[in-house]
Amino acid sequence: MEKKKLKTWAQAAPKLVAVAAGREAADLVVRDGIWVNVHSRELLPKHDIAVADGRIAYVGPDASHCIGADTRVIEANGRYMIPGLCDGHMHIESGMLTPAEFARAVIPHGTTTMFTDPHEIANVLGLEGVRLMHDEAMMQPVNIFTQMPSCAPSAPGLETTGYEITPDDVAEAMSWPGIVGLGEMMNFPGVINGDAKMLAEIAATQAAGKTVGGHYASPDLGPDFHAYAAGGPADDHEGTRDADAIARVRQGMRAMLRLGSAWYDVEKQITAVTEQGLDPRNFILCTDDCHSGTLVNDGHMNRVVRHAIECGCDPLVALQMATVNTASHFGLERELGSIAPGRRADIILSSDLTALPIELVIARGEVVAEAGRIQVDCPHLGWPAHARSTVHLGASLSAESFEVAAPSGANGVRVKVIGVVENQAPTKALSADLPVQEGVVEGTGEVCQIALVERHRGTGGVTNAFVQGFGYSGQMAMASTVAHDSHHMIVVGTSREDMARAANRLGEVGGGVVLFRDGEEKALVELPIAGLMSDDHAETVAAKAEALGRAMEASGCRLNNAYMQHSLLALVVIPELRISDKGLVDVTRFEVTDLIEGVLE
Amino acid sequence: MEKKKLKTWAQAAPKLVAVAAGREAADLVVRDGIWVNVHSRELLPKHDIAVADGRIAYVGPDASHCIGADTRVIEANGRYMIPGLCDGHMHIESGMLTPAEFARAVIPHGTTTMFTDPHEIANVLGLEGVRLMHDEAMMQPVNIFTQMPSCAPSAPGLETTGYEITPDDVAEAMSWPGIVGLGEMMNFPGVINGDAKMLAEIAATQAAGKTVGGHYASPDLGPDFHAYAAGGPADDHEGTRDADAIARVRQGMRAMLRLGSAWYDVEKQITAVTEQGLDPRNFILCTDDCHSGTLVNDGHMNRVVRHAIECGCDPLVALQMATVNTASHFGLERELGSIAPGRRADIILSSDLTALPIELVIARGEVVAEAGRIQVDCPHLGWPAHARSTVHLGASLSAESFEVAAPSGANGVRVKVIGVVENQAPTKALSADLPVQEGVVEGTGEVCQIALVERHRGTGGVTNAFVQGFGYSGQMAMASTVAHDSHHMIVVGTSREDMARAANRLGEVGGGVVLFRDGEEKALVELPIAGLMSDDHAETVAAKAEALGRAMEASGCRLNNAYMQHSLLALVVIPELRISDKGLVDVTRFEVTDLIEGVLE
Repeated sequence: MEKKKLKTWAQAAPKLVAVAAGREAADLVVRDGIWVNVHSRELLPKHDIAVADGRIAYVGPDASHCIGADTRVIEANGRYMIPGLCDGHMHIESGMLTPAEFARAVIPHGTTTMFTDPHEIANVLGLEGVRLMHDEAMMQPVNIFTQMPSCAPSAPGLETTGYEITPDDVAEAMSWPGIVGLGEMMNFPGVINGDAKMLAEIAATQAAGKTVGGHYASPDLGPDFHAYAAGGPADDHEGTRDADAIARVRQGMRAMLRLGSAWYDVEKQITAVTEQGLDPRNFILCTDDCHSGTLVNDGHMNRVVRHAIECGCDPLVALQMATVNTASHFGLERELGSIAPGRRADIILSSDLTALPIELVIARGEVVAEAGRIQVDCPHLGWPAHARSTVHLGASLSAESFEVAAPSGANGVRVKVIGVVENQAPTKALSADLPVQEGVVEGTGEVCQIALVERHRGTGGVTNAFVQGFGYSGQMAMASTVAHDSHHMIVVGTSREDMARAANRLGEVGGGVVLFRDGEEKALVELPIAGLMSDDHAETVAAKAEALGRAMEASGCRLNNAYMQHSLLALVVIPELRISDKGLVDVTRFEVTDLIEGVLE
Repeated sequence: MEKKKLKTWAQAAPKLVAVAAGREAADLVVRDGIWVNVHSRELLPKHDIAVADGRIAYVGPDASHCIGADTRVIEANGRYMIPGLCDGHMHIESGMLTPAEFARAVIPHGTTTMFTDPHEIANVLGLEGVRLMHDEAMMQPVNIFTQMPSCAPSAPGLETTGYEITPDDVAEAMSWPGIVGLGEMMNFPGVINGDAKMLAEIAATQAAGKTVGGHYASPDLGPDFHAYAAGGPADDHEGTRDADAIARVRQGMRAMLRLGSAWYDVEKQITAVTEQGLDPRNFILCTDDCHSGTLVNDGHMNRVVRHAIECGCDPLVALQMATVNTASHFGLERELGSIAPGRRADIILSSDLTALPIELVIARGEVVAEAGRIQVDCPHLGWPAHARSTVHLGASLSAESFEVAAPSGANGVRVKVIGVVENQAPTKALSADLPVQEGVVEGTGEVCQIALVERHRGTGGVTNAFVQGFGYSGQMAMASTVAHDSHHMIVVGTSREDMARAANRLGEVGGGVVLFRDGEEKALVELPIAGLMSDDHAETVAAKAEALGRAMEASGCRLNNAYMQHSLLALVVIPELRISDKGLVDVTRFEVTDLIEGVLE
């Protein structure tokens, strides 16, 4: 498919001026709608929009003078004309979809601009992975900007990523056309302590005149918080209380309020505007992480805006938070985020400003979705073979690979156990007394095995430990190559044979998520690209993910977001106990720790 | 004087972080003030500010941890801590002062940032003149950004400027460190008609990621206005009615509301916010043109903010319009315009948010003014000799130079007369019947002579014509090398001898304004730099300008802003009749026209 390149405003200006003046005909006119004006914060009935070269040429009371013989005319019939919605911060990989398929899934929901941080693929494929995401993003009929990931590894010294991101990588990426800034600076202790590498990445971004994304995941609003703000991050989406949002805005940062598949941080923070009356211009809505199921069943940014309105936010203010506020933050206010001359013609038609049905979506002047159905192609990148072959296991795994050897002669041991906590990202560092059989420590009851299988360099390394909280029973194992943030493979199971089967199966299909029970494969989500993403449609991936969820339930798991809990067990930046390729990690002391605490008498 | 170079945020970040965290001491702490927070739009009592390397390191409830042995501590004692004020659009030359002396005059009024368009000097000295202004601006202890002038000549074909500005000049200037955008695009008919040169200048500015200044001086809000907006200008300060401001904001432009020495456009437009309730974020306050007398007697941006408050604007909103709104518009929101980490430490202390007394001014962390008195040096550029020698008259002028020859044998003629209109910029195209004596047309009664003396290339060219409305009587003449926009010399007088004396005197002193009566010099304002500016202090220039005004009154002139009326008579972009080096100009038809309409019977 030949991609039509969008002209810059300057390139289009002669035509835009001529259309507005009535000397040339528009490509498209949307007639008789209520102009949702996010600049003046007004609803202006009986307005027309004229579009040429993918950009808005005219918005005013009457575009008759812009209509020629070949002008397509769409009748708004008194509906709202809303700027296409912007997602201020998100990770495409969370949808288990490639940029193309993610775009295809969210366009019908009215999302026409995304600010994406391909942090996951950076851990697997480094700068090249970021570039591949960037390139596929640039091919889409909507606007997908890339934030250069800042923190791979997230926890230097505690994990081995496939690749590391350096300040030189950041400086190089800043010259790419679709790079809009630095992805969330998660290493906030590094910034607070003046870590030279982190400050160099921020400096490279500032030197390029781009936006530094923040991530301050701590409730402490004292000097540490102030030091982080002084380091340069321009936004933050990690707030959970209104005091968090208020503190960030006061410090000249933008508060990004997040409603993801499993994040619910809008309701508690939007009161800063709805109750405390702060100037709303520095508040931005985002999703951060959305699963394919959410995209298929619930929506995307339209879901977030609706939710903000349900939380008491004025619809116009909520829409500003998902359009012009976002665009301004990234220095793109004159490029998109509003229905005004020169901007990309990204327009939604909706008949209700509260329920926000997305009836028609126009992007760059083309109708891209109508009545919830995609109307355009979302082109796929020719992903190189090595990007589809990232699960390097070294050798085939066997049940023995997952054996935890007990100290010689022990009949029982006390071990550290990762305790999964319902609805929370932090884990608990627990202990359990486990029996030893033939020199091997055995899980029992609620405690089953967990393993981190090295998969980037084929070292054959396996870190074995124990986990509690999934509720698995019988003989089973589940494996996933989505294993934040370094994305090795996490295998959880009650059966070492099934653990080996699951791990080997993912090696075979190039990554994804799989569940085995009693030696049989019960569910599989193939994620062949980097072991993180599928280039199937969202519906297909969501159906497989749902089947996986059912298989987890059938194996005894009763957790909410059970799959997410699984995939976060290697996230060695969040307390208390995690697993990495380096071993079991105590994330309160930031050090590798021994699994076996002692031999039982 | 050695100028201390301000570090970038990135360069200062290690120190800012260390100060905020309490590991290093601040250079300056301001203690116990009310933090005027223009991000959240809040007043926050009992806050401290810590400053290091000229930037803000910390703003919070207690900066004790930032104070070391060498930290200077200023007690705010419960006063308001306000961000330094920003002027969104202005011409330094209007003050008849160099950038250094302008800065010296306005710093005690709390202005710490100016967005300046050196349009006047561009007409006299071209790109080099812009660079000289830019370079002196960069030497100041406050922030003076330069907008690259867009329109020299303002009226191509109708006047000859000293130099012309081309799209290549614009592209070159965009790489200079202090250039922030394109100066007001006054050639709005050019933009509307798709003039390639004007669109190329806009394109060069957009390509550099900078802000395109607008100037749409027409009450027509129909297709012409929309075509102008589609051309790319991002702001406009020419609105006079609230409908003008509202129209601009709705189209995604920023409405700049102007209170200059002779512009009063805030009161009529701010109702868009105070009465109509529009989102105020896209409204900006500016002065455009301030005379030295205004700066000495009334103030600068503090005068504008006070006035906006008197017009009913909430003080916090008015302050946003002179701080963060302005900074955001120019892409400098993370650099200045608020009291927040990383920003330049530009801070005002004031004990009243309505009367707005400017009690202490800090710029880049240094106290620059206290109790209305400047506390720092404002360094002068070594202006090159040719910039002080721009009045090239070719030959000495004599009374004969100003004779208007009548058609052979005529005893009287009907001539076109430029009619000055009290309190308005447009003139009227009038006619008068004048007597002829010895073959020369003579002014009589209210009608006196006006001449435009070419002064850029020493051609010796003099355009003679007639003007009415000043009220001059007796034998006098006044000459000025400030003659918008091409800045030749305008001489108005009742006596050709005095006209010659006045013109020659300006040739002698290198430009300025002078008034002769009965053969004697009654007042002189020397403006040796480009014939536009003095490098004396504002007080001195203001005193001379006042003396000039008194001399005009003593010669019979009763006009308000009489000097401005004089200096605008060559402004061949404003109807109806003007004078240029090309002749008498009909500015309704945009053509040179004959002075003599006919011979009287």
